Amino acid sequence: MSDALPAEFALIARHFRRLAGPGALDLLDDAALLDAPAGKQLVLAADAMVAGVHFLPDDPPETIGRKLLRVNLSDLAAMGASPLGYLMTVALPRDLPPGWLGRFVDGLAEDQAAFGLQVLGGDTVSTPGPLTLSLTILGTVAPGAALRREGARPGDALWVSGTIGDGALGLRVLQGKLPHDEHLARRYRLPEPRLALGAALVGVARAAMDVSDGLVQDCGHLCRAGGCGAVIEAAAVPRTLDDPALLPLILTGGDDYELLFAAPHDADSLVRARAAAAGVAVTRIGRFEAGPPKVRVVDAQGAELALPRGGWSHF
Amino acid sequence: MSDALPAEFALIARHFRRLAGPGALDLLDDAALLDAPAGKQLVLAADAMVAGVHFLPDDPPETIGRKLLRVNLSDLAAMGASPLGYLMTVALPRDLPPGWLGRFVDGLAEDQAAFGLQVLGGDTVSTPGPLTLSLTILGTVAPGAALRREGARPGDALWVSGTIGDGALGLRVLQGKLPHDEHLARRYRLPEPRLALGAALVGVARAAMDVSDGLVQDCGHLCRAGGCGAVIEAAAVPRTLDDPALLPLILTGGDDYELLFAAPHDADSLVRARAAAAGVAVTRIGRFEAGPPKVRVVDAQGAELALPRGGWSHF
Repeated sequence: MSDALPAEFALIARHFRRLAGPGALDLLDDAALLDAPAGKQLVLAADAMVAGVHFLPDDPPETIGRKLLRVNLSDLAAMGASPLGYLMTVALPRDLPPGWLGRFVDGLAEDQAAFGLQVLGGDTVSTPGPLTLSLTILGTVAPGAALRREGARPGDALWVSGTIGDGALGLRVLQGKLPHDEHLARRYRLPEPRLALGAALVGVARAAMDVSDGLVQDCGHLCRAGGCGAVIEAAAVPRTLDDPALLPLILTGGDDYELLFAAPHDADSLVRARAAAAGVAVTRIGRFEAGPPKVRVVDAQGAELALPRGGWSHF
Repeated sequence: MSDALPAEFALIARHFRRLAGPGALDLLDDAALLDAPAGKQLVLAADAMVAGVHFLPDDPPETIGRKLLRVNLSDLAAMGASPLGYLMTVALPRDLPPGWLGRFVDGLAEDQAAFGLQVLGGDTVSTPGPLTLSLTILGTVAPGAALRREGARPGDALWVSGTIGDGALGLRVLQGKLPHDEHLARRYRLPEPRLALGAALVGVARAAMDVSDGLVQDCGHLCRAGGCGAVIEAAAVPRTLDDPALLPLILTGGDDYELLFAAPHDADSLVRARAAAAGVAVTRIGRFEAGPPKVRVVDAQGAELALPRGGWSHF
């Protein structure tokens, strides 16, 4: 037998090894190996993305891996955790254009540097179907400090970071359904995980999550976990485009990756101070209320808005 | 908005929540949360499987998730590690038959009980392509105890567990290319991760890995990592079918998930005692030798056999 590496391993070596952190053992072993972080809790999340479902097949290769990494980092942010590393599996169609994989890894390398983590392991396989990626992220948090979805109480204020709806609007821009808008397109392709804000909200927020499937639907998760209802004031929801016709999409479209959180009703100045220190804008958009776990969206006159659906579902 | 769960969440709740371990927070939060195991090293591996590539589209739903779990457990075994938990992402085609997901989860539940671990998190998405699964496994090992691929030295004995070639033969059985054989079909669908053996080899084996891509090719990994060559005595390789025409497939077919390891040449009785304690058969099949990282396969007369390829590659 030749001592040359088989094609699969040469491919991995050429492209992925430069992303590998110390615990990854150069991606040459059966598994990664790292010391368990002393006195910490581990935070673990996994997400998958499929071409044509979660991103556009013609999205730039540089942004596709970064989007998945950022979506997972957003899960860490929602728990107030710090990133430690990640594992990624990639199912590659055989017809990828030359250079695609190199550009894909270039994008990941950029975000690894930006967010301070490295790849620990993974797997590269072929598929007769669409490009399919899966990423498991590993983070740490001080014991007991993690932000959880449960904990919102009637009377708590409802807050959100950044602007809502940009991801859903950006997708429509890229589909040609809305006018060209570079900012919105970028927000769809490269969401901003709010890691600094999540960490800053530890001890302040009573409950938190990231908005991935639509503001209204995700707010419902906080309600169910907290055993209460919520009211969202539509006019207060921070957004990039103010066209009333786009409001339902903004409120339910998803792909936001902003933090949605509950804080005591009298903690506004503390919330604002922590958010300012983290460099992230936050807006109070409503409140939690006693009652069944329903989300009411109301207009400036307090009248309830009817929305066609709460958010995105795969099934 | 209704307080009913959207379809995706109801699906997850109905099927996957019963697999969730304590750290999984009932799969209701953004991430799993567990105490970092004090005084341990973490061992992490990820593998992906695609219908039609890694398993047969008409394999029983009960075995598909179990195969992926076992493949990952085999990576832990190869490091001498113990399982802690796993995260799984599932990309489901829309045309899955009714009841498929329930049977898929039934199989996972059975193996969770058998191997002592539970799901920590994951993601369920839809795909227009084939069923695609990705699993990240988390294990622990005492600091410095992990078996590694590097460490084989010239003169070391080369050992393997169980029988080699069963997975590749079982695939041919299921494809109708070989006569019906329930044992081989099961070996393809449900490989046996050698966790007890891996743990028992800590302190004895100098290098180890699991055989997934073919005995000869994988032995080449131990050679490259150790900076030496290896000789495999074909006649010594333990196998279920002894037909000489099947020998190339047995030696290179892959999907074995047996442990391949190096041990000092004078440690045979210690290796056998540890393996016996772990309840796993082991066979000495060759030796490492000085020289370039090549694997020679020789017959009973010492003549080198020509093999068409070393093992499986996706690309």
